[in-house]
Amino acid sequence: MDRIPVAVLGATGAVGQRFVQLLAAHPQFEITAVAASERSAGRRYADACRWVIPGDPPSSVSEMIVSPLEPPLPARIVFSALPASVARELEPHFARAGYAVCSNASAFRNEPDVPLIVPEINADHLALLERQRAERGWSGFIVTSPNCTTTGIALAIKPLDEVFGLRRVFAATMQAISGAGHPGVASLDILDNVLPYIGGEEEKIEHETCLLLGHVVDGQRVQADIVISAQANRVPVLDGHTICLSLGFDRQPTIDEATAILAKFRGPAVVRGLPSAPPHPIIVRPEADRPQPRRDRDAGEGMAVTVGRLRPCPLLDLRLVIVVHNTLRGAASGSILNAELLVASGEIAYGCLPSA
Amino acid sequence: MDRIPVAVLGATGAVGQRFVQLLAAHPQFEITAVAASERSAGRRYADACRWVIPGDPPSSVSEMIVSPLEPPLPARIVFSALPASVARELEPHFARAGYAVCSNASAFRNEPDVPLIVPEINADHLALLERQRAERGWSGFIVTSPNCTTTGIALAIKPLDEVFGLRRVFAATMQAISGAGHPGVASLDILDNVLPYIGGEEEKIEHETCLLLGHVVDGQRVQADIVISAQANRVPVLDGHTICLSLGFDRQPTIDEATAILAKFRGPAVVRGLPSAPPHPIIVRPEADRPQPRRDRDAGEGMAVTVGRLRPCPLLDLRLVIVVHNTLRGAASGSILNAELLVASGEIAYGCLPSA
Amino acid sequence: MDRIPVAVLGATGAVGQRFVQLLAAHPQFEITAVAASERSAGRRYADACRWVIPGDPPSSVSEMIVSPLEPPLPARIVFSALPASVARELEPHFARAGYAVCSNASAFRNEPDVPLIVPEINADHLALLERQRAERGWSGFIVTSPNCTTTGIALAIKPLDEVFGLRRVFAATMQAISGAGHPGVASLDILDNVLPYIGGEEEKIEHETCLLLGHVVDGQRVQADIVISAQANRVPVLDGHTICLSLGFDRQPTIDEATAILAKFRGPAVVRGLPSAPPHPIIVRPEADRPQPRRDRDAGEGMAVTVGRLRPCPLLDLRLVIVVHNTLRGAASGSILNAELLVASGEIAYGCLPSA
Amino acid sequence: MDRIPVAVLGATGAVGQRFVQLLAAHPQFEITAVAASERSAGRRYADACRWVIPGDPPSSVSEMIVSPLEPPLPARIVFSALPASVARELEPHFARAGYAVCSNASAFRNEPDVPLIVPEINADHLALLERQRAERGWSGFIVTSPNCTTTGIALAIKPLDEVFGLRRVFAATMQAISGAGHPGVASLDILDNVLPYIGGEEEKIEHETCLLLGHVVDGQRVQADIVISAQANRVPVLDGHTICLSLGFDRQPTIDEATAILAKFRGPAVVRGLPSAPPHPIIVRPEADRPQPRRDRDAGEGMAVTVGRLRPCPLLDLRLVIVVHNTLRGAASGSILNAELLVASGEIAYGCLPSA
Repeated sequence: MDRIPVAVLGATGAVGQRFVQLLAAHPQFEITAVAASERSAGRRYADACRWVIPGDPPSSVSEMIVSPLEPPLPARIVFSALPASVARELEPHFARAGYAVCSNASAFRNEPDVPLIVPEINADHLALLERQRAERGWSGFIVTSPNCTTTGIALAIKPLDEVFGLRRVFAATMQAISGAGHPGVASLDILDNVLPYIGGEEEKIEHETCLLLGHVVDGQRVQADIVISAQANRVPVLDGHTICLSLGFDRQPTIDEATAILAKFRGPAVVRGLPSAPPHPIIVRPEADRPQPRRDRDAGEGMAVTVGRLRPCPLLDLRLVIVVHNTLRGAASGSILNAELLVASGEIAYGCLPSA
Repeated sequence: MDRIPVAVLGATGAVGQRFVQLLAAHPQFEITAVAASERSAGRRYADACRWVIPGDPPSSVSEMIVSPLEPPLPARIVFSALPASVARELEPHFARAGYAVCSNASAFRNEPDVPLIVPEINADHLALLERQRAERGWSGFIVTSPNCTTTGIALAIKPLDEVFGLRRVFAATMQAISGAGHPGVASLDILDNVLPYIGGEEEKIEHETCLLLGHVVDGQRVQADIVISAQANRVPVLDGHTICLSLGFDRQPTIDEATAILAKFRGPAVVRGLPSAPPHPIIVRPEADRPQPRRDRDAGEGMAVTVGRLRPCPLLDLRLVIVVHNTLRGAASGSILNAELLVASGEIAYGCLPSA
Repeated sequence: MDRIPVAVLGATGAVGQRFVQLLAAHPQFEITAVAASERSAGRRYADACRWVIPGDPPSSVSEMIVSPLEPPLPARIVFSALPASVARELEPHFARAGYAVCSNASAFRNEPDVPLIVPEINADHLALLERQRAERGWSGFIVTSPNCTTTGIALAIKPLDEVFGLRRVFAATMQAISGAGHPGVASLDILDNVLPYIGGEEEKIEHETCLLLGHVVDGQRVQADIVISAQANRVPVLDGHTICLSLGFDRQPTIDEATAILAKFRGPAVVRGLPSAPPHPIIVRPEADRPQPRRDRDAGEGMAVTVGRLRPCPLLDLRLVIVVHNTLRGAASGSILNAELLVASGEIAYGCLPSA
Repeated sequence: MDRIPVAVLGATGAVGQRFVQLLAAHPQFEITAVAASERSAGRRYADACRWVIPGDPPSSVSEMIVSPLEPPLPARIVFSALPASVARELEPHFARAGYAVCSNASAFRNEPDVPLIVPEINADHLALLERQRAERGWSGFIVTSPNCTTTGIALAIKPLDEVFGLRRVFAATMQAISGAGHPGVASLDILDNVLPYIGGEEEKIEHETCLLLGHVVDGQRVQADIVISAQANRVPVLDGHTICLSLGFDRQPTIDEATAILAKFRGPAVVRGLPSAPPHPIIVRPEADRPQPRRDRDAGEGMAVTVGRLRPCPLLDLRLVIVVHNTLRGAASGSILNAELLVASGEIAYGCLPSA
């Protein structure tokens, strides 16, 4: 089977580099174009980007000439690592031109006809695509993946919500610097320090979590009825967001019940076996001092959320701590898993390009 | 006026060193003895301790010979920086022998007749000393200062509690490594990492805060009726604990009300003007990204709690972030301020030693 | 005695902020103007600068309106914290207009008629000012202070050079991130990492050290005949450059001789007693593991160079390690000490402004 | 082909864990025993060791019961991660009992009849084994691998020495905290800091490098005639030692010559193709700011030394910077590569245990 040709938009940035790294080794996809802003377009990829990931750019991509950020590109799927404002303008051009746009940007996450997907949580939200096509008249489409922190939280609480009915969430985050891209956070601001503010992050966590845990009813996305209070902080950690959660349910789970439900979670059948899907989307650790970002971020190739410290909460029902790899599960790998879901769901046909 | 002779118990440890550093420059107190465990006793102080604070041990103390941890010591007040288990055994020896013991250890914080004091919050709890003397028959006494994190939380919520009636608290902490002493946290455990567990810390926060905000009624300490849920984390910061708080009140304050009440807080009259009391125990910062531990821990010579990010909470009433210097306000300076309060309250007479 | 009115050029940058912090508390100088680029000019200083130093901008300066970078300014001395390229263009404007320019920029350090001064080393190089005035026809003048790393190295080797005749130097540096200003080094580049390259740094160390240790003969500056090989690295340290040195002399000192000569160094009489001059410009520490940047950078209010690990070298004669505070002795405080020297030398008269 | 049974001595320590992690996935070796001190012996491996490496202990080893540190063990090769003083006493017991001891400890590195091996450098030094057997009468033997820093330096200079005749070396190191094991360096000592001293390290670098680059003549190891001056520092980096080198040769290489010789280095034929041997033992990077420990330590699975910044030296001939992974190439993987060399050289027969 031939691999599906894919392009990366914003390929020279920190998240774009992760896309390139991951897609270069992907069994289903083949990078056929890397696109970036005017400053980079026309240059060798290896020259245009300051590679910030360990190792080197994959040799299959290093020599590619960076394309401008516009159709046509010789690809069927375009992965978008664009900043939100740029994504807002450019992603529709690609959808209109027939491409499947798998976006990591926040630009369209809140649109009622644009699926916001974490496959293990809400693969069925792809049903919104029908409405998207009908309303927008695009021959392609846009599917989005959520904010990195939200992805981790939503994955960890989904199985508990299903059984116990989640109503209230306190979330205090300790987020890695890679979440701000490169150059991102100045070292003078974060060494021996904590920054108790990340612009827009708390709002995203509070809102997108309810979208992910919502339901599609009659083609409409209905948000979950959960009240969330988030406090977001930046800490001197390279990769891996750590989040302290307190959860309140309709029915209080015992610690053993909650542990068992988290540990056995697998997500829907359509997701299992996808190339980027981890065998266990949630890993429960029994040690008193886990999860830790450096030691747990790479669990399941960076696609598993690690959960620990399950214990009662004096105010709500349950406390726990989670770690999610923010640039893998929470960004590039998350969007790639969405693309794999689209392929498995028949939304993307092999072998024909939009321009064909 | 002569300075009051004081001794430091556990003088060679990290907190003990802070005591030595601060007391060597104190206008009311004069270090006349440094005591430590058998391993150090009999040695020159400068040789016995591995100084972990910037600069050098004060020259007035360097040449002292370390005393064993037992009375008599040529002092009126003994400051205890002992580990809890050692403090449990030894502090009563000193209290019985007539010394005023100002303890930073947790050993006696929960005893109903031992004041747990942060002067700006509950100087009136010294009333428990009468009961302590009556029940224990000691010629001296023990006064304790709370856990470092608790000190910061209790200071920040006290003025709000007085006006609005605090009922519920969520606290997620990001604590500095100096809180674990030296050698304390291994660098391999904390560099590029977060440790989501600090043994006993959450329980201390949840319990001691209610003691501090309680009231002494008929010689009995009545705990405050506040439910607290704490999640404690260690982060790669040298000094300064950062704490995210969500607060629920009997009556919801507006952000402006809360800000004004925090900013104008001074504590009771007896505290103002004490040598270690900061002019403003609480400093409210308006910037979106403050307080930060490295930039705010030294506010008010490390004795002020810095508060910021006051904003509504979707679940409770108010969210905010605070920073407290854990080894100054939260440890050594806090105990010294207690001793200053004892002097101002007439509990410690100048000029006569217990052994006299 | 009135204080001398001074201005800071580039006052909103990281080094400029240090100037402002230090000058606001200076006994001889009074900040009367802060100047910065067009982006900041016309704004309140506290609004125009993102304060990266612990604490807050001094209240005496916060409300000042930032001036543009051009004469006239209501000052007698202007301290320059400008980038080299900007300094190259603008500093002569001020010198021509009659101001004493004390520059921390590298722009004019290599000019044969511009003194490059560390007062304890080569106060006598001020003799070049006569030539500068004669050749340039300025009513004011420019005096420069060296690169931060160079300052530390030159101070540590000067007393040894005088006695033993220094010929060869190996220097490997581990430099703090504050040396790159703000935002400067991206946290993604330096956390858990070392950057083995700092643009232009090695050349500055190798050249400026020879200028500082040179002599003024017949109005000409003659470089010292020393061969220096420098390797410069950036490490995750906030402040304080650490430098490993190996030194080769005409006559090999014993360790005791070298130690004694360093410990007793005071610099020339004209420098002692200047407000910013430390009582001991060089502090020799006997511990095996000192100096360390965090523990020694603040020695002598950040103006002393701390030296340790003196031991023989298998290849040259002597090995040692030094720490210098890069933004104090190595930048702002260094230039201020130069200004104090100019006052003490009669080069700056009190009470008359250039525009008067 | 059956895998050779191997044991790890000191299996619960930081280096021991690396051995376990690597050997569990090794194509030639199979862990059949893990041994540690009395405190751990008799316990489940997963319980006895506090795993400090990302991920979990390999499942094939987790359930093993830790053996005491004495023969017999059901193995043919024993890898020693023991502290030097313990190794001094115990390694001979195993050699006498017939085991091939591949030691990472320093205890026997300087013995004239014990090979100190980095296979790409001096595989021929195994010739010393004949003498070792003859003199000691052991049925097994001891082969050692060098100090971690020395390994990197020796690998980088070996190809240049062969061609240009190395005579003098300046080395300034910036070493990772993992080199001190766990708990090792206290976080309070290294965060925002540099420690300019590592006990014994400089002497090891200066001596062991000459052993590695020496020659075996008539069964005697003759040290290389190179004068080395080392300055060792600890920096806040997790893994990967960075070393600045200045080299003086009999004949000065051009930068192009040196670059070409380093880039084409492969080591002797017997080493190529060993499972742990990297295809390129030395990787030369052209970027101005490489190598960096975080970005280059994992080159060649942590077995390649990365070299950069080749440039002339004002004092000697050539300057460069290298990075070596201290716990892989510099410790566990290095000893494993030695074992692979021993297998390939016929020194270890498959299938028969010492006790058989």
